[in-house]
Amino acid sequence: MILRQEEIEHLMKLKIRDVADFPKPGILFKDLSPVLKDVHLSQTIVDHLASHFSKHKPDAIACLESRGFWYGMPLALKLGIPMIPLRKVGKLPYACYQEEYALEYGTATIEMHTDALEKGWKVLVHDDLLATGGTAMAASKLIEKAGASVCAFSFLVELEFLEGKKTLSTFGSEVHSLVKY
Amino acid sequence: MILRQEEIEHLMKLKIRDVADFPKPGILFKDLSPVLKDVHLSQTIVDHLASHFSKHKPDAIACLESRGFWYGMPLALKLGIPMIPLRKVGKLPYACYQEEYALEYGTATIEMHTDALEKGWKVLVHDDLLATGGTAMAASKLIEKAGASVCAFSFLVELEFLEGKKTLSTFGSEVHSLVKY
Repeated sequence: MILRQEEIEHLMKLKIRDVADFPKPGILFKDLSPVLKDVHLSQTIVDHLASHFSKHKPDAIACLESRGFWYGMPLALKLGIPMIPLRKVGKLPYACYQEEYALEYGTATIEMHTDALEKGWKVLVHDDLLATGGTAMAASKLIEKAGASVCAFSFLVELEFLEGKKTLSTFGSEVHSLVKY
Repeated sequence: MILRQEEIEHLMKLKIRDVADFPKPGILFKDLSPVLKDVHLSQTIVDHLASHFSKHKPDAIACLESRGFWYGMPLALKLGIPMIPLRKVGKLPYACYQEEYALEYGTATIEMHTDALEKGWKVLVHDDLLATGGTAMAASKLIEKAGASVCAFSFLVELEFLEGKKTLSTFGSEVHSLVKY
């Protein structure tokens, strides 16, 4: 099924469930579970993303744990490129690059295996949600530590009022989101 | 590429990396990262699993966070069925069923959304690793709480000396692992 992005966004908005006060009071969480349950919509999403990002000819896709694995892995297979997991600190077993980033309160750290990427690779970064862009920015720094570069950022959902796109645009890479709120 | 299971097992064993003392002293961790980096092998794995499990005609695949998402999601798309995430406590935003299970020291709890499955569905359970079978057993109980049943268990790697297969066999469902140690 070939649909325009506006049509996919419309279908996704019909499925995405708002959950109030999760994970903490005052946050309206965008729950993608009903999208996962709709296999035809999920396949359409993967097909659309693969078609959209093929122009960048990425060498790999780096996916952020763990909701970034959902559509990141089928996208990797569709594009015919490796899926590289970026995980919270302490989850990857082998030697890692680390990058710390700021949260609303405190900091968090993500890791990537030092042999995950080859030097010079162009990497697509994928996550489910673009909020402030902090995690994706940390992902970019991990990728640069490995001697590779980011060719584009891919998100399923973007919270535009948090202006994460502005933050990531300093990288000069495309920032693409399927659904915007 | 159509390969026999023994050939896939051989190729995977060439890639799987042993990491000593992870996540704690005395554990020899089976690192699947080099398998993820090999996109042709990854595609072969998904094709094989889809071909193998299609005989069960599963209505959904329940995947265990977070390494179970890696091959579980493309397998769901290939089989044309919903992917249902089972996650550690506190990660799923909506109303959940909970199931506690024993670890070597203490307990852990996994959750599934109460509306994830429909009553009567036959569900394939997928995770990366079969060790003692505790997590997969907890997954089965979650699925039964929702009025559905397990038609088969799918693992990429099985540690045979921990006898998880014996534990899960009490369910009467097929237990399938691609690679055995």
